[in-house]
Amino acid sequence: MKQMNNFEKKLEKSKKLIERQIYRYLPKTRIANLSDGIRYSMLSGGKRIRPFLCIETCRLLNSDQKKALPFAIACEFLHNWILIHDDIEDGDVKRRNKFTIWKKFGLPHAINIGDMMAHDVFEIILNSKLEEEKILKLIKLIVKVVKETCEGQTLEINLRKIRRIDENQYVKIAKKKTGYYFACPMIGGAIIAGASKDIQDSLLQYGKNIGVAFQIVDDIIDLTLGKGRGEIGCDIREGKKTLMVLHTLKKCSSLEKKKILTILEKPRDEKKVGDILAVKKLFEKYNSIEYAHKKSMEFARKAKKSLKGLPINLGHFLEGFTDYIIQRYE
Amino acid sequence: MKQMNNFEKKLEKSKKLIERQIYRYLPKTRIANLSDGIRYSMLSGGKRIRPFLCIETCRLLNSDQKKALPFAIACEFLHNWILIHDDIEDGDVKRRNKFTIWKKFGLPHAINIGDMMAHDVFEIILNSKLEEEKILKLIKLIVKVVKETCEGQTLEINLRKIRRIDENQYVKIAKKKTGYYFACPMIGGAIIAGASKDIQDSLLQYGKNIGVAFQIVDDIIDLTLGKGRGEIGCDIREGKKTLMVLHTLKKCSSLEKKKILTILEKPRDEKKVGDILAVKKLFEKYNSIEYAHKKSMEFARKAKKSLKGLPINLGHFLEGFTDYIIQRYE
Repeated sequence: MKQMNNFEKKLEKSKKLIERQIYRYLPKTRIANLSDGIRYSMLSGGKRIRPFLCIETCRLLNSDQKKALPFAIACEFLHNWILIHDDIEDGDVKRRNKFTIWKKFGLPHAINIGDMMAHDVFEIILNSKLEEEKILKLIKLIVKVVKETCEGQTLEINLRKIRRIDENQYVKIAKKKTGYYFACPMIGGAIIAGASKDIQDSLLQYGKNIGVAFQIVDDIIDLTLGKGRGEIGCDIREGKKTLMVLHTLKKCSSLEKKKILTILEKPRDEKKVGDILAVKKLFEKYNSIEYAHKKSMEFARKAKKSLKGLPINLGHFLEGFTDYIIQRYE
Repeated sequence: MKQMNNFEKKLEKSKKLIERQIYRYLPKTRIANLSDGIRYSMLSGGKRIRPFLCIETCRLLNSDQKKALPFAIACEFLHNWILIHDDIEDGDVKRRNKFTIWKKFGLPHAINIGDMMAHDVFEIILNSKLEEEKILKLIKLIVKVVKETCEGQTLEINLRKIRRIDENQYVKIAKKKTGYYFACPMIGGAIIAGASKDIQDSLLQYGKNIGVAFQIVDDIIDLTLGKGRGEIGCDIREGKKTLMVLHTLKKCSSLEKKKILTILEKPRDEKKVGDILAVKKLFEKYNSIEYAHKKSMEFARKAKKSLKGLPINLGHFLEGFTDYIIQRYE
């Protein structure tokens, strides 16, 4: 727990620095339903983990963290525009205890705000005053990450209509959907610090594994503490095939299986609180939450193994981050 | 008319070359509801005007048009992803006589397909084997163009709820929404050919003016021939404040004004064919279609004036393009 407090303290401290920077990159001109949408999205809180990972990776690879600040903020724009479009695609009404962008500004503006921010990402990098070669590498990185994330998102939406899924598919999607864009700020920090390709590859491996661990923990939190969406069990409401769903489906009776799938496949608006609780009860009956917890630990261990090739300080820092991710729901 | 035939012949000839190239950039891996969506969008026809403008501009600035091919295709990806998101935002069900992407693949996938293609644009440019300096300039161009287009789109959506609008606002929005991304392939072609900043600036001026002319002609076609959406008057259905709307509102009685605004502001689904025809009749009563036609000619003249600083062959080619745009509805 000491490690976690240490990580959290540093994260909290960097938050102020990062938020001061964010202000510098907010739109200068006022356009109703666009600049206010970007401000609302960028200033709606969040832990600012990605920018922190970026500047710390750069610093721990013996470079000036200031050089990494623009890219760190670009990662936060990236994170937020993806959330804006995701919330539309998933029909989520609340995030961080506030209305989502589409709920507040309407669907047409929300798509457009996301598109604008997706291109702000590139603008921030282009204006970052780094060497041209590094700018091109960072742009390539963003393109790769977004394309993997889009593929992951497609696969996840497709999965809602498929009844036979195995764990490998879940892991593959989590790596694409969550892993790449966790790795992105770290790899970016490494590129800015001029680190070797080997270090970048280790960070990608780490990011993919920690991404899966994060996703599983997120799924558990959605079911227990809730994710700032005003209720628990949003994933069930959305019909998501979480690891708990897959595990329970494997263990339960055919009658129970039918019950779960019927609830998951109901249109979102028709799902009642009782439906959510019924599914949760089956998760508990088959120890699926416990199973998911164990699996998240397994991916955290894999993540830590990927740290071997990294300089000791950076490895130590990311071990602390791994523990922080895993302990979020304790 | 001879000039127009000439332009069209060349356009038709280049179409085959461009479409062969497009095939090379389609997704290699199959992911249901993603790669098929991109293929559907990219192969659904269209005149391929933007790629043609790009390679011809490059060629007429004394460079090898082959060098411009990747960027030309990137412009077609850009054009198509913007249409995909636009069709969602406008609620359009048909385009080029086929279902729009959101209607065919569903809203979540449609947003995601657009996001993927927006990043394909950058990937194509990154892989274009041009000098790094030119690649960076082309990326900057795309970012600038998309941001202007997003602003234009926001302003246009905002306008639907505003009753007092003047022509200047319409022109400003058309320049942002249509002008920049008409200028984009031409400026890109000029960058690739290594042309001066002055030439690039003239092309931007030309693009903005021809963009306004194009937009007005498009609005007229929507009302007369239809735009491949299975009906005429889609703009009225969407409540768009076209130049015809602005002109009629300025000329008509207060009773007629109320009638027009009531129809425009009705929810899309509640608008009947009779509503569309009633508005069209008022346009005719006040010669607003004729007025719009005159205005489009005015912007075509302005566009031609912007060609003065260009090499004679390129200027001549773009004069032909201007006539082609203006004569589309004759």
